[in-house]
Amino acid sequence: MNKLLIVGTVAFDAIETPFGKTDKILGGAATYIGISASFFNVKSAIVSVVGDDFPQEYLDLLTDRNIDISGIEVVKGGKTFFWSGLYHNDLNSRDTLVTELNVLADFQPKVPQDYKNAEIVMLGNLHPLVQSSVLDQMETKPKLVVLDTMNFWMDCALPELLDIIKRVDVITINDEEARQLSGEYSLVKAAARIHQMGPKYVVIKKGEHGALLFHGEEIFFAPALPLEEVFDPTGAGDTFAGGFSGFIAQSENVSFDNMKKAIIHGSNLASFSVEKFGTERMIDLGKDEVVSRLKQFKSLTQFDIEL
Amino acid sequence: MNKLLIVGTVAFDAIETPFGKTDKILGGAATYIGISASFFNVKSAIVSVVGDDFPQEYLDLLTDRNIDISGIEVVKGGKTFFWSGLYHNDLNSRDTLVTELNVLADFQPKVPQDYKNAEIVMLGNLHPLVQSSVLDQMETKPKLVVLDTMNFWMDCALPELLDIIKRVDVITINDEEARQLSGEYSLVKAAARIHQMGPKYVVIKKGEHGALLFHGEEIFFAPALPLEEVFDPTGAGDTFAGGFSGFIAQSENVSFDNMKKAIIHGSNLASFSVEKFGTERMIDLGKDEVVSRLKQFKSLTQFDIEL
Repeated sequence: MNKLLIVGTVAFDAIETPFGKTDKILGGAATYIGISASFFNVKSAIVSVVGDDFPQEYLDLLTDRNIDISGIEVVKGGKTFFWSGLYHNDLNSRDTLVTELNVLADFQPKVPQDYKNAEIVMLGNLHPLVQSSVLDQMETKPKLVVLDTMNFWMDCALPELLDIIKRVDVITINDEEARQLSGEYSLVKAAARIHQMGPKYVVIKKGEHGALLFHGEEIFFAPALPLEEVFDPTGAGDTFAGGFSGFIAQSENVSFDNMKKAIIHGSNLASFSVEKFGTERMIDLGKDEVVSRLKQFKSLTQFDIEL
Repeated sequence: MNKLLIVGTVAFDAIETPFGKTDKILGGAATYIGISASFFNVKSAIVSVVGDDFPQEYLDLLTDRNIDISGIEVVKGGKTFFWSGLYHNDLNSRDTLVTELNVLADFQPKVPQDYKNAEIVMLGNLHPLVQSSVLDQMETKPKLVVLDTMNFWMDCALPELLDIIKRVDVITINDEEARQLSGEYSLVKAAARIHQMGPKYVVIKKGEHGALLFHGEEIFFAPALPLEEVFDPTGAGDTFAGGFSGFIAQSENVSFDNMKKAIIHGSNLASFSVEKFGTERMIDLGKDEVVSRLKQFKSLTQFDIEL
């Protein structure tokens, strides 16, 4: 198997949806990515930072899933990054209520020595300079670098964002962010423009409407599984990214055909993530359930027209 | 092959999009459905009404495609139904500028004798009482009745609409209409509720986000082909319905598995329809182009995960 290096936030979230609200619970992009990738046979590590208010049980939860946490710095006397959000009735939009950067404000990522030759690097949503710093520390060129980002960095750190975009193989962003980054409304045109910025592969996430993978003239589409109810969308995109990069690391194959499978695995895992608050559903999730829902994905999309 | 009976409007449209505007051009649900179905090996007829202002060349265009127009009544001194619409910048919403019912106001549909035993009946969007009257005239029970409708009838003729919904096998509506009809936000729940109203098959059209086919617990999803540019969405839903019902009629097979293929054929044809104003693209469309784009649909959605 390939080694998977994950960088991103490990955090506290407080979430309110039409179905209820939580106190501070385990959250953060790297947390979701790591848990999702742990459904594959991979050797993975997280690079992140927390304060010493971060419970040991949350760290244990990661190590229990065979995630190397030696790259998670614990800042003495520091407070962990905290985000709080309120989802609107249709769950497609949300307001951020609180963002306390805390220890994230001065975060200097340190890649563990054992992961400076990781074949797959998953750059979760963070300041583009932090993402760049992780790539700078690699001692061998990764087979695949995947970047997740969001509109916030397009607004506040566009030059730095464009620098890191140049250096990655795959970028995953949502439809509105693809439009903002490219200045194109058509997602086909947007993907073409983003290709020109560097990434050979562009993944555009459309939430409940699925995800598109663009590679030159080739396009692949994975639907989201139609669900009776979405309970909490927090972390769905990160869970998708974790499934995508985890499957690629396990299969040691960065071809377009294999990425199609990776997109399906990512969509499959994300469909569980939204069923309960935070990481709750992913923690309880059994491999039999994962396989059973993959079968649903197959019957949802596969047809037989002879040409 | 099976016989396909189509009821719906044959009309004049005037369309304005961000890309340009038209004078009065050929339009109407039955027109789009008939042209789309003519890409299959079917025997089809349209039941509709026009005024004597309707150009012979438009009627010839239908007969040239082997569509039986003996059920299109031409009202002496009458004026043809006219609709005019303005699409907004994202092409996902539109304002109706003009609706002149004209001869449609007193339309009494008359099914040609030769089609009173049609196996497949496609009820295009019209007053539910007109749709019911067509079913009342059938002398043998059709193998499949497909209903298309819209929110307008939910607002203005709900009891009559519920009556016809009870009598059909398949209903095709868009996502917002499914929510309005069912009172459920989740499309999975909406489809379940609509099943209870009668139709064994529920097709929910999501425009650029594809279409879902529900049958009991089974779900199939067909994406819309990602296009560089949508030029004019008018008639896309009718073209979809025409491809769906035309393929079913050609294949003489009303199974769920065959409906999956029908949904793909419908989506495929609809992807052409939106590329030019009105019916222009469909009139010029070659069968080789249709097959070539079906291949794109396959590569867009088919993957190979062993389970």
